[in-house]
Amino acid sequence: MLTNRLTRLTTALADQALDAVVIVPGANLRYLLNVSFHPSKRLTLALFSAAGGRPRIVLPALELGGVRAQLGDIAHFYPWTDAAGPTTELLEAVGQVFRGRRARIAVEHTVMRVMELRALENAGRQLGVELDIVDATPLLAQMRMVKDADEQAAMAEAARIVEQALRNTIAQIKPGVTERQLSHICTQEIMAAGAEGESFENLIASGPNSANPHHNVSDRAFQPGDLIVLDCGAVYRGYASDITRTVALAEPTPEARHIYQTVLAANTAARNFVRPGVTGEQIDRAARNVIAAAGYGDFFLHRTGHGLGLEINPCHEPPDLVAGSNVPFAVGTTFTIEPGIYIEGVGGVRIEDDVVITEAGCQSFTTFDRDLMIVPV
Amino acid sequence: MLTNRLTRLTTALADQALDAVVIVPGANLRYLLNVSFHPSKRLTLALFSAAGGRPRIVLPALELGGVRAQLGDIAHFYPWTDAAGPTTELLEAVGQVFRGRRARIAVEHTVMRVMELRALENAGRQLGVELDIVDATPLLAQMRMVKDADEQAAMAEAARIVEQALRNTIAQIKPGVTERQLSHICTQEIMAAGAEGESFENLIASGPNSANPHHNVSDRAFQPGDLIVLDCGAVYRGYASDITRTVALAEPTPEARHIYQTVLAANTAARNFVRPGVTGEQIDRAARNVIAAAGYGDFFLHRTGHGLGLEINPCHEPPDLVAGSNVPFAVGTTFTIEPGIYIEGVGGVRIEDDVVITEAGCQSFTTFDRDLMIVPV
Repeated sequence: MLTNRLTRLTTALADQALDAVVIVPGANLRYLLNVSFHPSKRLTLALFSAAGGRPRIVLPALELGGVRAQLGDIAHFYPWTDAAGPTTELLEAVGQVFRGRRARIAVEHTVMRVMELRALENAGRQLGVELDIVDATPLLAQMRMVKDADEQAAMAEAARIVEQALRNTIAQIKPGVTERQLSHICTQEIMAAGAEGESFENLIASGPNSANPHHNVSDRAFQPGDLIVLDCGAVYRGYASDITRTVALAEPTPEARHIYQTVLAANTAARNFVRPGVTGEQIDRAARNVIAAAGYGDFFLHRTGHGLGLEINPCHEPPDLVAGSNVPFAVGTTFTIEPGIYIEGVGGVRIEDDVVITEAGCQSFTTFDRDLMIVPV
Repeated sequence: MLTNRLTRLTTALADQALDAVVIVPGANLRYLLNVSFHPSKRLTLALFSAAGGRPRIVLPALELGGVRAQLGDIAHFYPWTDAAGPTTELLEAVGQVFRGRRARIAVEHTVMRVMELRALENAGRQLGVELDIVDATPLLAQMRMVKDADEQAAMAEAARIVEQALRNTIAQIKPGVTERQLSHICTQEIMAAGAEGESFENLIASGPNSANPHHNVSDRAFQPGDLIVLDCGAVYRGYASDITRTVALAEPTPEARHIYQTVLAANTAARNFVRPGVTGEQIDRAARNVIAAAGYGDFFLHRTGHGLGLEINPCHEPPDLVAGSNVPFAVGTTFTIEPGIYIEGVGGVRIEDDVVITEAGCQSFTTFDRDLMIVPV
């Protein structure tokens, strides 16, 4: 499987007239080499040449043992110590990959930091190689967007885990419990259900706070009449789930109910629209039309969804479900569908599922009930 | 307090002949404005001009509500929607700050991604401003290195929380429990003890795995005779603690005991050496000399410690305690002291405390017993 991915990468590099791609620790490296690193300020880079062959990994010496245990001899290693610094090893590795006077290389614009970019630029200068540096994101996104059966199985399990946790979390909602308390409960339930970790810091937004789609969890205590948005996810074998449900604590207002039904209809319309060949813009429009027709168009503040897989925190992975996303989706593409309405003074509702495109249309990994759940007081 | 920090920033910019500093979400923005953002792929930048005045924040429209609730009118906002994209708002904000034909600006090399750098470069080109972009890290590190009383109080509480959690975690060690199980327990205990979150993904390394200082948690079950390294931390009011203790499950080998006593002596020597005016290199040497004298110099694979405060994951904050760190530390500087010895086939030991420099020398926020704890079988 990994060899297959490396072969596809080499082909893609050649297709795009790239000499190499330089990848930092994160989802892409995990995808290509099945290796994970500790996040670190210490320079860590993997160089993949269009000429093929083993990738070259520049890494802190103290990571070498763990990484070699994962990779064996699939890569060349260039370990550097805190005392020596990374420059010598970086020049050695880069010199093996950039052999001409010019090199066209791709780096991950949404992941690589300025420090790694500057280190590469300096290495190019010292070696007398003129570097043309472009964004590797489209190339890697294209490779990762379609998930194989093994990846889909991991995503289905990540969805199952978070649903179990969400059920147990909702069961603990009552007046007086705070957002922060429920957030802690949610974290514990996700871990107890078998997750490797949370996909992201869970979001609990209640009452007036629910009107903010990216609310930071607060010490507000739940009150009867609240809408409560719960947005959380679990990681399983590196793959993420991401679910949102909105519940009411005691009977909500008629307007809140109306908003809920509108969002649910938008979610349903979008899922029903999914099939091989649709674009992100089309799915987004399917959801947006429902909400606009109900008169809430100005209150649907974000895109309808985002890609899902290895990468979710801090960055979602492609594709976006938004205007301008015009590449047709293939069978095996995975993403969220999460329309929402947010009105200050009234509250907010979001309903989010994780789906995959199948030959037949759309399969949802998320199976949690979508009807409005009213938690009794 | 915040006004004071902004005033110090403006002065520092002028001192270094900088026209502005551009900061992305993270520890520096939290320090300067007491604001936190959701991590995101969406462009978010705060521009601080050397001319003073309110900072200008370019941000996704869906973050505006939450951020304005935190900041009020302390900043100018330039919100952009997914449909419109960030370019217009970015040009508007940048145009207000870079008014000449040249601008010398600083960005965070260890935090800012290539995408934000490219966005700034493009804005400069479109506005006809030639940008000279330098690293903001030293300037901001200098500002943040010395902690005030309020910050130290938060760090002391973060240390107390993780010590309570660590005590409860160690109590659950017994043969057959796996690293991963204990890691989950540790996470739950940290949250239960009152943390806002974990400082970082906790590290549990047992038996042969303890010989790897950056081991990834595994499914290995504990066995009598194991050394078990536990490295974890809690966040309180944004400030992190970071503690390591190494325990033995049943009686360890004589060599393991000898290693433990050597690391403890190195930890003690380093703490005793700390006083106003020492450098990171000197403290590092104080620990390293003890380990080298015992014949284990080649097995102390990392620096003696790192700065601690708002920033720990994925990047430690300055200062480093390592050769070449030659700036004298002032009263109020906070960092870890964490010597270790790691020998394949034998095992590893690390003992880590969080300390602050006081007029009198060194105060340790960490008070957890440092003597070898033997968990009975």
